[in-house]
Amino acid sequence: MDKQVAVIMGSTSDWQTMKETCLVLEEYQIGYDKLVVSAHRTPDYMFQFAEEAREKGYQLIIAGAGGAAHLPGMVAAKTVLPVIGVPIQTKTLNGVDSLLSIVQMPGGVPVATVAIGASGAKNAGLLALQILGLQNQPLQEKLVANRIALANKVMEDSHELYESSITD
Amino acid sequence: MDKQVAVIMGSTSDWQTMKETCLVLEEYQIGYDKLVVSAHRTPDYMFQFAEEAREKGYQLIIAGAGGAAHLPGMVAAKTVLPVIGVPIQTKTLNGVDSLLSIVQMPGGVPVATVAIGASGAKNAGLLALQILGLQNQPLQEKLVANRIALANKVMEDSHELYESSITD
Amino acid sequence: MDKQVAVIMGSTSDWQTMKETCLVLEEYQIGYDKLVVSAHRTPDYMFQFAEEAREKGYQLIIAGAGGAAHLPGMVAAKTVLPVIGVPIQTKTLNGVDSLLSIVQMPGGVPVATVAIGASGAKNAGLLALQILGLQNQPLQEKLVANRIALANKVMEDSHELYESSITD
Amino acid sequence: MDKQVAVIMGSTSDWQTMKETCLVLEEYQIGYDKLVVSAHRTPDYMFQFAEEAREKGYQLIIAGAGGAAHLPGMVAAKTVLPVIGVPIQTKTLNGVDSLLSIVQMPGGVPVATVAIGASGAKNAGLLALQILGLQNQPLQEKLVANRIALANKVMEDSHELYESSITD
Amino acid sequence: MDKQVAVIMGSTSDWQTMKETCLVLEEYQIGYDKLVVSAHRTPDYMFQFAEEAREKGYQLIIAGAGGAAHLPGMVAAKTVLPVIGVPIQTKTLNGVDSLLSIVQMPGGVPVATVAIGASGAKNAGLLALQILGLQNQPLQEKLVANRIALANKVMEDSHELYESSITD
Amino acid sequence: MDKQVAVIMGSTSDWQTMKETCLVLEEYQIGYDKLVVSAHRTPDYMFQFAEEAREKGYQLIIAGAGGAAHLPGMVAAKTVLPVIGVPIQTKTLNGVDSLLSIVQMPGGVPVATVAIGASGAKNAGLLALQILGLQNQPLQEKLVANRIALANKVMEDSHELYESSITD
Amino acid sequence: MDKQVAVIMGSTSDWQTMKETCLVLEEYQIGYDKLVVSAHRTPDYMFQFAEEAREKGYQLIIAGAGGAAHLPGMVAAKTVLPVIGVPIQTKTLNGVDSLLSIVQMPGGVPVATVAIGASGAKNAGLLALQILGLQNQPLQEKLVANRIALANKVMEDSHELYESSITD
Amino acid sequence: MDKQVAVIMGSTSDWQTMKETCLVLEEYQIGYDKLVVSAHRTPDYMFQFAEEAREKGYQLIIAGAGGAAHLPGMVAAKTVLPVIGVPIQTKTLNGVDSLLSIVQMPGGVPVATVAIGASGAKNAGLLALQILGLQNQPLQEKLVANRIALANKVMEDSHELYESSITD
Repeated sequence: MDKQVAVIMGSTSDWQTMKETCLVLEEYQIGYDKLVVSAHRTPDYMFQFAEEAREKGYQLIIAGAGGAAHLPGMVAAKTVLPVIGVPIQTKTLNGVDSLLSIVQMPGGVPVATVAIGASGAKNAGLLALQILGLQNQPLQEKLVANRIALANKVMEDSHELYESSITD
Repeated sequence: MDKQVAVIMGSTSDWQTMKETCLVLEEYQIGYDKLVVSAHRTPDYMFQFAEEAREKGYQLIIAGAGGAAHLPGMVAAKTVLPVIGVPIQTKTLNGVDSLLSIVQMPGGVPVATVAIGASGAKNAGLLALQILGLQNQPLQEKLVANRIALANKVMEDSHELYESSITD
Repeated sequence: MDKQVAVIMGSTSDWQTMKETCLVLEEYQIGYDKLVVSAHRTPDYMFQFAEEAREKGYQLIIAGAGGAAHLPGMVAAKTVLPVIGVPIQTKTLNGVDSLLSIVQMPGGVPVATVAIGASGAKNAGLLALQILGLQNQPLQEKLVANRIALANKVMEDSHELYESSITD
Repeated sequence: MDKQVAVIMGSTSDWQTMKETCLVLEEYQIGYDKLVVSAHRTPDYMFQFAEEAREKGYQLIIAGAGGAAHLPGMVAAKTVLPVIGVPIQTKTLNGVDSLLSIVQMPGGVPVATVAIGASGAKNAGLLALQILGLQNQPLQEKLVANRIALANKVMEDSHELYESSITD
Repeated sequence: MDKQVAVIMGSTSDWQTMKETCLVLEEYQIGYDKLVVSAHRTPDYMFQFAEEAREKGYQLIIAGAGGAAHLPGMVAAKTVLPVIGVPIQTKTLNGVDSLLSIVQMPGGVPVATVAIGASGAKNAGLLALQILGLQNQPLQEKLVANRIALANKVMEDSHELYESSITD
Repeated sequence: MDKQVAVIMGSTSDWQTMKETCLVLEEYQIGYDKLVVSAHRTPDYMFQFAEEAREKGYQLIIAGAGGAAHLPGMVAAKTVLPVIGVPIQTKTLNGVDSLLSIVQMPGGVPVATVAIGASGAKNAGLLALQILGLQNQPLQEKLVANRIALANKVMEDSHELYESSITD
Repeated sequence: MDKQVAVIMGSTSDWQTMKETCLVLEEYQIGYDKLVVSAHRTPDYMFQFAEEAREKGYQLIIAGAGGAAHLPGMVAAKTVLPVIGVPIQTKTLNGVDSLLSIVQMPGGVPVATVAIGASGAKNAGLLALQILGLQNQPLQEKLVANRIALANKVMEDSHELYESSITD
Repeated sequence: MDKQVAVIMGSTSDWQTMKETCLVLEEYQIGYDKLVVSAHRTPDYMFQFAEEAREKGYQLIIAGAGGAAHLPGMVAAKTVLPVIGVPIQTKTLNGVDSLLSIVQMPGGVPVATVAIGASGAKNAGLLALQILGLQNQPLQEKLVANRIALANKVMEDSHELYESSITD
């Protein structure tokens, strides 16, 4: 299958979180590459990656980073492809640093930021699908179907809780 | 021209900020509608809007909201179109409340969040253009050209500062 | 017994916290329903729930939610019954996100917000009892009696600590 | 008319904010008293006030306070009437201190907390009306009607914005 | 020995922290009482305690509390004895709520606030000794001697670290 | 009159705030000295000041500082006199930096911290009076009398508000 | 004179702050260049600048940036010259975002971070002088002399305050 | 070997973190001393240390401290050698208190601040090397070589992740 999405992260330790993104892409059979690209330790590789992203055929870049978290913003500075940023939870500041570093971009260079940690990583995958779905009607329909399935699952949970005893 | 983007906001007082989004869309001649849609005061209208968004031909929704800021997330819950959320700066908490309410979405329903305030609103427009550019080569090229112009402007500023006296 | 209160929560994982609310209601023999209602995964079910709440005879809705936590505010937007919001503690931000998303409602649609986590869930139950007690003198008296019992318990603790040796 | 609500505040400087509460009560013709009751400067008066609140016929107490903001919680400790707390915006910490001091009550003594500042004060009034409305069908209907009027106003704003030129 | 200090706390769960205060007082052989006094669960007992504190011969009150943490401020409102407040670390907000609720007192009623948690509790004891030392020359000298011992201990640690190998 | 209190501050720009402390001391006719002592710009002068404080007859030191705000803690490290710290409001962080730098002292060296800004400065003066009042019965009685006057003033305000029309 | 320091900033709007750095360098007659280098708008220029910095003879780079503030960290990733980062105060978050983005660098690539805003900019200049002073005895001596002059100025202020009347 | 760097810390409990600094210095064979110097418990020793630092031949001081964290700033106030501050992660506030106390220095006395915790400690060592490298070409070249090795390591990680299966 074609590689439409690049999933990059600042460090191998971010894989635990960013795997959630990849699981979503796999579930929808969207081709993707996964790479470690460090803004601070491999700045040239990062620039090369970002410069070549369009010609390599990627349509979207999803970048996870923690702490100073410059990766999503710097890649965004080097490409006009949409960049989705995932703030990785950090040990000291719980990812508040990652969130602010990723989301507070100056006017001119946007990063589409999602929630801190695993929920955000999962949603980064879904956001990518929603964007790709604009050119892919079956994908969009599959997203709609998934929403319905999700709702049904919640309503089953609801019914089960409704019927349960508090002492269960 | 065709309306590809809906720019919505929770209150008329958000227009001052969201106008930045519309100026970007105008500059790139992207058709858009601008509406006040309040999650809390017009919940049914919001749902109707979100439900009809796809059939109305919108490809993207940009939603600005402040405080509890439920608009972007609730619209996102009702459509599989990409939703970009703009946290409006608030009087008491400077938009930290808006930011957290918009970005901290649970796994399953993403909102592409940008910076608090006017920079974020401008970037919401640019992010929309980047997404639309995936299906529109000339638009994508125009974004590239704009980046070059932006860089040239900065380098002129730099040259001017370099040459200036500190007492200027 | 009559179902006067609906206890809803965004996810089954919130039950651990919201059980505290139900335990209070059970202790005072107030009829209640407990449901999973997700603002983002079941938006239509949420609206239907909120719309029918009055005719179903509920007098109060207690809603627990974490992160973006739109449930209490959106239910409040769809009913004029009092809505009590319980901010669930979150893994990344400890519930600060939940608290701000629930409490910072715009003028026009209030949510009665309580503390983050289990203390808040318990107090949500007690606040419901205080509200129901306005029409129910014996319930109000029972709340008064409970306060006295609570005070006596603290004073026993105090006496025990007073008498204890620091090396106990 | 009968005084069903007591609106209290820690200082005369809070009146600017708490007036929003009173304007709502006036609009719905709900009788209320307005008083300055300081937790720290008039502790005995505060206790006396809270002790006598029920026999004086109040059904609800709305308390605004800033900074350490002990007033709502202490009044709540002395009565089983529902207490609504309004965090007043502060000069140094913008009301974050007020909010945390009011909302983070321990299990056993709830305070129904609303947003910081004027929006919160207005919503405190509306929350009181929703609670009183449980025993007052016409009041509840009036709240419903008001919601509809509010929605219509937003939709008019929306239409006006939709039609306006960005250069207006 | 004479009871010069009252060490009070909002709940038995605070004892773990407040024990640090008592250990300091024991070390310096200062008589003290230790009590559970809850602002919210035993408001009348709290007021009675504060009113009688002077005539009981206490010279200082040390009050530990967490969350809304009204105890130190309310006791301070009812006595002109110096009140030292210890913010207890909380599960959700780490004691930031306790700290702000205790320290942000309005002009007119001070609380001498120390650090969050065990260090603060220990320092509350030392601060009490410093205050009592103003009337007690031998106590003041003992504090001076203790400072010297403390310094010597650090310098021994320093010497040991200096001499150690990094692989120790 | 005898100089019992030293009021020090890190910069002349803190005088605007610390004047509140001095006004309280003047009102109660407590002798004091006021000095600029900068932890960072005059470290030796600070140490000399702290070392000589006891022999100069000061009983208490009140230190105001902003930002890194090391003054109160460093003076406290050099004397066993009680040190009261006043966090000055800062331009960038509103005094949160000052507060944390002053209050988060390690076990062994306490600083009695009060609220950020003018309220804190005023309360620093009152706390000093409460401490001095332990050895000065008339001063303690004057503090009691002042509390009563303060309460009466609030109750007059309350009466006036009670009687006023909302349109006043 | 020789250009030993490069003072760069992300935008011309940062000049107001970074001018403080340059004034310090001028005062000590240290040659410097001042440039606008934007991480997001001129990424290639930034990399070229950082790559050539050593061969151009700069010994130090001082970089001011606000919001996502990637400039100092990215320049640091591209050179082994010491980089000093100045967090610019921002309109929405007061520079907390700038501070965290600059200081929270991952292990491997340090940025020497100073205070938010003008004080930080001034100190960035002084820190550069301290570093250059390691190879320049007269400069180091001039820094010592300046410290003494600074202390004398504070002590004059102190004397003046000491002598002044509170009503001045 | 010559002792060019002094690594000091406020308490032996900081060694776990500051060891990271020393490991870097060892790796590059830079002579250093490691000492416990407590601002609050050994103020005189701290001043003596700082005063003698230059004549002892140190070129740089690296100071780790947590909480009120006055050590880096006070040492900086007593020497014109560059001082690097490492904010130690704290139990209650995760090191936010340490960071603000260290970085928010007033104009006149800079501290070069690095990230909270172990990453910061490591970077403090690297920053010292970068500063020393200005006078030591081989050291500077070794830093360059290390950067290349670091990049190669990341690119190997990247290749491995690229090739791996998500189910690995």
